[in-house]
Amino acid sequence: MTERIGLDAFRDREVLVTGGLGFIGSNLAIALVELGARVTLLDAMRDDHGGNLFNVEPVRDRVTINFSDVRDESSLQYLVRDKDYIFHLAGQNDHVLSLTNPFPDIDINIKGSAMLLETCKRVNRDARLVYSGTRGEYGAAVMLPVGEDQPMRPRGIYELSSLTAQQLFQIYHDNHGVRSVTLRLTNIYGERAQMRHSRFGVANWFVRLALDEDTIPVFGDGLLLRDFVYVQDAVEALLQCAATEAAYGQVFNVGDSRASNFRELAETVVRVAGSGRWRLAPFSPERAAQEPGDFCSDIRKIGRVVGWRPTTGLEDGIVRTVAFYRKFREHYW
Amino acid sequence: MTERIGLDAFRDREVLVTGGLGFIGSNLAIALVELGARVTLLDAMRDDHGGNLFNVEPVRDRVTINFSDVRDESSLQYLVRDKDYIFHLAGQNDHVLSLTNPFPDIDINIKGSAMLLETCKRVNRDARLVYSGTRGEYGAAVMLPVGEDQPMRPRGIYELSSLTAQQLFQIYHDNHGVRSVTLRLTNIYGERAQMRHSRFGVANWFVRLALDEDTIPVFGDGLLLRDFVYVQDAVEALLQCAATEAAYGQVFNVGDSRASNFRELAETVVRVAGSGRWRLAPFSPERAAQEPGDFCSDIRKIGRVVGWRPTTGLEDGIVRTVAFYRKFREHYW
Repeated sequence: MTERIGLDAFRDREVLVTGGLGFIGSNLAIALVELGARVTLLDAMRDDHGGNLFNVEPVRDRVTINFSDVRDESSLQYLVRDKDYIFHLAGQNDHVLSLTNPFPDIDINIKGSAMLLETCKRVNRDARLVYSGTRGEYGAAVMLPVGEDQPMRPRGIYELSSLTAQQLFQIYHDNHGVRSVTLRLTNIYGERAQMRHSRFGVANWFVRLALDEDTIPVFGDGLLLRDFVYVQDAVEALLQCAATEAAYGQVFNVGDSRASNFRELAETVVRVAGSGRWRLAPFSPERAAQEPGDFCSDIRKIGRVVGWRPTTGLEDGIVRTVAFYRKFREHYW
Repeated sequence: MTERIGLDAFRDREVLVTGGLGFIGSNLAIALVELGARVTLLDAMRDDHGGNLFNVEPVRDRVTINFSDVRDESSLQYLVRDKDYIFHLAGQNDHVLSLTNPFPDIDINIKGSAMLLETCKRVNRDARLVYSGTRGEYGAAVMLPVGEDQPMRPRGIYELSSLTAQQLFQIYHDNHGVRSVTLRLTNIYGERAQMRHSRFGVANWFVRLALDEDTIPVFGDGLLLRDFVYVQDAVEALLQCAATEAAYGQVFNVGDSRASNFRELAETVVRVAGSGRWRLAPFSPERAAQEPGDFCSDIRKIGRVVGWRPTTGLEDGIVRTVAFYRKFREHYW
């Protein structure tokens, strides 16, 4: 982990994490409890998403769990009222679904974010918000690594809904006095992600296939570049951004300027797991249409302003991920 | 008007105009009827918006009028089925409302556009669509005139919802086989705009105040620049874009590189009307927060690809506007 300057900020503070039983949300919740925060987790437990009560097993008796939807105005108003920090991780993340039905993305990601922001505007303008979006907001990279000022050309509805949500946070920050930091996360992998389907979370899916002694399909020629970031590094980015005054009103990439290709990922997973194999496979037409090509993030801005950089290499991260799922497989398969 | 090359394209074609009883929609409908199109107008007649049956009086017996909401999936599916062209002008345009309530913009502008696009994808992929957005999608100008490749930083919810809708059209064009041209219209003025309130359509509001022998408030120092475009020029842009094969998949500014300031506008209106007066007045805090500063459009792209440019100067346009409302005042006041 990077140097944890300023993380005393969370001691005895009231923190709400939306999507708090999901992949990143639950890892964040565990870290917040360790930092002394009083943590409330909101989760709608949507089908096929990451919500899993086992995710917060290590802190189960030290968090408040609330099953609700961020779009439910009344309960949300009650939940945000006394919070010092709100991490907004709830969302419809299935970009394959968004190819056939745009409405869940619009309703959950855009309207849900607006509900959170409008509610904070009405009942708690002192809250500090962190929004976690996706590098998909950029679309295809004009040049690598991709900096925050590159053109925004999302190629799918899911990615567009994430960009619109990010812009909503920016507008509420600039014009309505609701402070926020917005992030664009690259491919995050690690413990506590759902492992039941392959529609999002490709690196974790590779881990599942290897542990199942199955064959990992590597699409295209397998040389597409991605910056994979280990979830604990991503959690550290969320925390450090929230704790950094100068970060508010800004958008930051959370990624890595060092990229790997999908063959390297598959080889690493198979080697670390000691099981499974990989082979090249063609893209489906739907995936090919939205595939934005090589991608890696320019992370100089978050380094300069917040002091964050990822510190866990791909091999180390995969070792920890494989160990976690080998031990707790029954809760995720 | 500019040279009307290619406008035979509309003869005997089925055309749907959403928001067809509104300001731009009704002027477009009249032009389409003159070009021999079979025109259906969809309008939800929202309170305080532009829908007005009198707007289509000149072609009343030559258009089909359908009162419905673009978000109503079933009726929309029936209406788009056989259309050759669809002009999408329906929308929540009140950016003052969007300051206090973001949900109508999300629901009508974003979800409504998604409904139209998804419906075309399902039942009529041969339709050609034209979307009319706003120059507010850019936010503050980085440099003047503002070209289509400048950064998109909308400053309000209305402007963001228009940008998201534009990006939806682009994604459906690029990835789902629903062809469209998207436009960013600057300040349009002229006959058939609503005249009951000042929340949108500033140039027309100036005309009303002058005709009422009232005082026109010119905000700030009155030197803010805007490119005002006469509605018949805007209609011509919509028609020419729809009729130009090379325009599909592109976004174009519909504006003017020659800008006027608000004092000039007020002076012109008062002089042409021969009544009323103007004085400087302070911005409200809400307007000041979202005021993007000087603006004029770079229109070289639409000139190059489509061959359109505005041909009606501010004085001429105001003369025609004043004449219209003087004659038909009872239908608009």
